[in-house]
Amino acid sequence: MHSVNIVLMGFGNVGKAFVRLVSDKQRLCRDRYGLELRLKAVFTSKSALYAGLRSDLKDVAELEKSEGSAHPAWKTGLKLEEVLTGGQDRGVLVECTPTDMRTGEPGLSHIRRALAKKWHVAAASKGALVLKFKELMKSAQKGGVRLKFSGATAAALPTVDVGVLSLAGAEILGIEGILTGVTNLILTRMEEGISFADALKEAQARGIAEPDPSLDVDGWDTAGKILLISNAVAGTDFSLSDVVREGIQGVTIDDIRTAKKEGKVLKLLGRLIREGGKDKADVKLIAIGKDHPLYHVAGTNKAITYFTDTMGAITVSGGKSDPRGTAAALLKDIINIYRG
Amino acid sequence: MHSVNIVLMGFGNVGKAFVRLVSDKQRLCRDRYGLELRLKAVFTSKSALYAGLRSDLKDVAELEKSEGSAHPAWKTGLKLEEVLTGGQDRGVLVECTPTDMRTGEPGLSHIRRALAKKWHVAAASKGALVLKFKELMKSAQKGGVRLKFSGATAAALPTVDVGVLSLAGAEILGIEGILTGVTNLILTRMEEGISFADALKEAQARGIAEPDPSLDVDGWDTAGKILLISNAVAGTDFSLSDVVREGIQGVTIDDIRTAKKEGKVLKLLGRLIREGGKDKADVKLIAIGKDHPLYHVAGTNKAITYFTDTMGAITVSGGKSDPRGTAAALLKDIINIYRG
Repeated sequence: MHSVNIVLMGFGNVGKAFVRLVSDKQRLCRDRYGLELRLKAVFTSKSALYAGLRSDLKDVAELEKSEGSAHPAWKTGLKLEEVLTGGQDRGVLVECTPTDMRTGEPGLSHIRRALAKKWHVAAASKGALVLKFKELMKSAQKGGVRLKFSGATAAALPTVDVGVLSLAGAEILGIEGILTGVTNLILTRMEEGISFADALKEAQARGIAEPDPSLDVDGWDTAGKILLISNAVAGTDFSLSDVVREGIQGVTIDDIRTAKKEGKVLKLLGRLIREGGKDKADVKLIAIGKDHPLYHVAGTNKAITYFTDTMGAITVSGGKSDPRGTAAALLKDIINIYRG
Repeated sequence: MHSVNIVLMGFGNVGKAFVRLVSDKQRLCRDRYGLELRLKAVFTSKSALYAGLRSDLKDVAELEKSEGSAHPAWKTGLKLEEVLTGGQDRGVLVECTPTDMRTGEPGLSHIRRALAKKWHVAAASKGALVLKFKELMKSAQKGGVRLKFSGATAAALPTVDVGVLSLAGAEILGIEGILTGVTNLILTRMEEGISFADALKEAQARGIAEPDPSLDVDGWDTAGKILLISNAVAGTDFSLSDVVREGIQGVTIDDIRTAKKEGKVLKLLGRLIREGGKDKADVKLIAIGKDHPLYHVAGTNKAITYFTDTMGAITVSGGKSDPRGTAAALLKDIINIYRG
């Protein structure tokens, strides 16, 4: 049995779902993978819960409502450095703070500190990786630890895993993905005759789109994901400014109808295009036909297609996009880190 | 740089494609993975090519036509034991002999001998694994080596990888796969109004179906694959006789039309069904509707859907089915064995 110390940064929807999932899956992790998961600390934006080495994660889940209260488990002033212990006690930092693709913070500082202390990292937030991919990957390599980010690259839909492991030995000739559920849902509703504004309102009412939907609707979310996937799988070195980006704000029902007349659907694709020895990444509205592997990916569904030299085109689709799906991606990364 | 000794068993279409692929990918394996692939020996049904530790695989590919001739590289009487050397010289046995699901031979003897000598194994032939899955996996575990079989479980379509690695930590609630290209092609052609007999003839003329198509058409191929995938991913312990099996011989165009009237298509699915704590595997013709993730998988395409508790339904589709695709799956397994 291998003990895995976990320090969780961020206690929003994903952080809370992660704590619950770890509690639910503790026995399975023991029995199937020989891993004893121990939640050492949870840092929220205001305070920190120091769980010590107790494995009573149920308590932690119950503490959700008590955050910031006078409950003795919640401490203010606890520093990350105090729990990033060395030696045999090292473990995984799980990064779940909100994504900020301009500064990368606060995730960037967390990940840098964890890697410096030779802790593994599993990240659900994209910002730090999008901005400092190369630096952080090098730092992990130098420290002999792993930096994984399945939760930041389309939640439970496996994208990076499949590209790195299942396509090992193949050349990636191109990548195309429907990587943001909200934009795909809006486009699907528009195919049904609903205007962009109404489809967006509907998605917001259902809690799928954020009150400020620009991260999704303007293509930033897709841009961040295709950047991370391409850099990890195809060895590119894209910065966010390299990704030529368009959103779906300007799409009209007429555009959708024009595509339909040609037997096509409009999709917001994140793409890696490799032509003539040059790599290009973009987020672009493309009308695709029935022969395209992403043609049937509708609603909040996501999918990615890898075009390869020796294996043909391989598409992965589906996967939960809710906080529990993202938490499951984080847990997967932790298991695979320790499986070696 | 890590030297990887390879002993190849079988020099049919897949074996030859593998030798060519290793030759084509030698540089990539060096640069990207730090692996120096060395083809040590090739065993055909009649003789063996002993390549020593030379890395001039181009020569080996050119030798294809000289097999069994007086060319000095081809030896008769060379024994497998002579090349399965110990210590640092151990490597991977690549098993590409024809699949025999009644006896498992000759693959079974090859794999047993390799594992006993603590060689890793990458298998494209199914027979031995289908018959002796548990024994062989235990033997690999005991020897501290890996037994991989991506090439035996739908060629370049990643099935076992995704289930084991990308779904780590999730419970598999069920599996459904379109795992045999030939049967799916025949059913697709029948949707277009062509009779079973004509569709089969066409597939044979195109070299997709075997002269004796019963392995595919009677569902044996799908049965072997779902058995291996389920045992590897879901921890079941199925024998071939546990897999309730039907083929597509009896399907009529009327059956297809009846399904179509209900908005459905007939598909030959390999399934793991988990209900009430019981596991059941079958190969069954099922009429599936538009909401099913395998509805749009047509022609020679293959796909698999994993239904999980925390990640939702995840589908992988596509992937080349030709000998080069299978060879690519073997190479992937070798890379992942040594990547650790």
